[in-house]
Amino acid sequence: MNALCNETRVRVRFSEVDSMFVVWHGEYVRYFEDGRESFGLQYPGLGYMDIYQSGYMAPVVELDVRYKFPLRCNDEAVVRTRYVETAAAKICFEYEIRRVEDGIVVAVGRSTQVFTDSRGELQLYSPVFYQEWKKRWLK
Amino acid sequence: MNALCNETRVRVRFSEVDSMFVVWHGEYVRYFEDGRESFGLQYPGLGYMDIYQSGYMAPVVELDVRYKFPLRCNDEAVVRTRYVETAAAKICFEYEIRRVEDGIVVAVGRSTQVFTDSRGELQLYSPVFYQEWKKRWLK
Amino acid sequence: MNALCNETRVRVRFSEVDSMFVVWHGEYVRYFEDGRESFGLQYPGLGYMDIYQSGYMAPVVELDVRYKFPLRCNDEAVVRTRYVETAAAKICFEYEIRRVEDGIVVAVGRSTQVFTDSRGELQLYSPVFYQEWKKRWLK
Amino acid sequence: MNALCNETRVRVRFSEVDSMFVVWHGEYVRYFEDGRESFGLQYPGLGYMDIYQSGYMAPVVELDVRYKFPLRCNDEAVVRTRYVETAAAKICFEYEIRRVEDGIVVAVGRSTQVFTDSRGELQLYSPVFYQEWKKRWLK
Repeated sequence: MNALCNETRVRVRFSEVDSMFVVWHGEYVRYFEDGRESFGLQYPGLGYMDIYQSGYMAPVVELDVRYKFPLRCNDEAVVRTRYVETAAAKICFEYEIRRVEDGIVVAVGRSTQVFTDSRGELQLYSPVFYQEWKKRWLK
Repeated sequence: MNALCNETRVRVRFSEVDSMFVVWHGEYVRYFEDGRESFGLQYPGLGYMDIYQSGYMAPVVELDVRYKFPLRCNDEAVVRTRYVETAAAKICFEYEIRRVEDGIVVAVGRSTQVFTDSRGELQLYSPVFYQEWKKRWLK
Repeated sequence: MNALCNETRVRVRFSEVDSMFVVWHGEYVRYFEDGRESFGLQYPGLGYMDIYQSGYMAPVVELDVRYKFPLRCNDEAVVRTRYVETAAAKICFEYEIRRVEDGIVVAVGRSTQVFTDSRGELQLYSPVFYQEWKKRWLK
Repeated sequence: MNALCNETRVRVRFSEVDSMFVVWHGEYVRYFEDGRESFGLQYPGLGYMDIYQSGYMAPVVELDVRYKFPLRCNDEAVVRTRYVETAAAKICFEYEIRRVEDGIVVAVGRSTQVFTDSRGELQLYSPVFYQEWKKRWLK
């Protein structure tokens, strides 16, 4: 299998825990973003700032999260971010977050990003920089 | 149609806007939660703290967001939160966020919550307080 | 007395409450910012985006907070933001946050902002737009 | 000198950067908290959850931040957290945050925490667990 994957660690901050003593569900959006940024460091060219410097933006247009098990204060977790190939002018990722201590899956999710130019116009075709990124890293 | 709905307003904070000059996508999770809490004030009994005082918790287990149009700093938006009936021991909501200025839809989404007791045990049947809430407000 | 003041309301969000059942102390920085932005709507010209459109930025360089009493989930509070006159090229505010229910002071604070141009260069003299703002609103 | 110190690293997240392309000033409160929690791991007993398990809470009652230089997206920084001795029933810390790349100081600050029991009553004398922590680690 030739899927592009990245793994990165996050540690739960006190401020991320809600009054039910578990990580507030919105914080996982940040963990996914940590995963994406870490992916972008491993396979350079897909980080937010890389994309911006290529003259584009890549806003998230779809985000799905499934919560399986709560994380708690000071827990460490691994975010596994997998690039999902698509012919469309989109960037698709799947995520799996596991607690380090016992490997239990705490959340999974997926996101889709599209491309806009710097004025916010949707790009129907993949920008050249993205085509080149794909050529370099896929297969 | 007898759907239970709530509308509440949010105003975009400077700190919610990212370096692409639009609201960071994770902030919409907060807007949905604002919608849920406002719904809980209109149809009392489903706010986080109400549920907690009934001896239960209602963690979000599914969350989907579709982003349609970016909100920007100081924009005002209306969050419309609609209760979706289900026979399962779950609370399901659908959300629609529109920019006040022109009514354009900026995001839609849905969430599912389950019930646990105070030790975190999943409840397979709807707690009595929720059955009563349904009796009172549905039909 | 001719102090320029603004009052605005905030409602505590579930996500702002920490696992001690009180508002996490970092959230008050957002409430102060809400106060500043609301002040900028009442006395136009000092909001972040106004300043930015004048070709400047006004980063916060000093921030002090004194916490007096905890806010809890769903509490409503009033943020009172008072402009503090200074001859320096700075914007100084004082803040007082009171719980609506009983008027108890929950936090006080102050902030200082300086001016930079769009490349981040510190401005030693007040920009013209700020001099004019002062002429208009102070006495 | 026998000051107790901890150093820990933070990496700036995209979501922490505001529309001026710098880290939003409120995020430094989180960096300080990261410093405190990391300190609590090095000198066990002063983390939020340790204190809570001893039957107490230690709310922050004073927080001062001085901003010296902006951090930007993906910057790495070191938070240096120094315990400041006091005879009072308080926990005092000083913080210094430096950018890793060049060692430049980006922010300094200090915080004061007091003790309350689990019902929120202020403790005028240091709890036993804190006296013992001091005996163990100071001198």
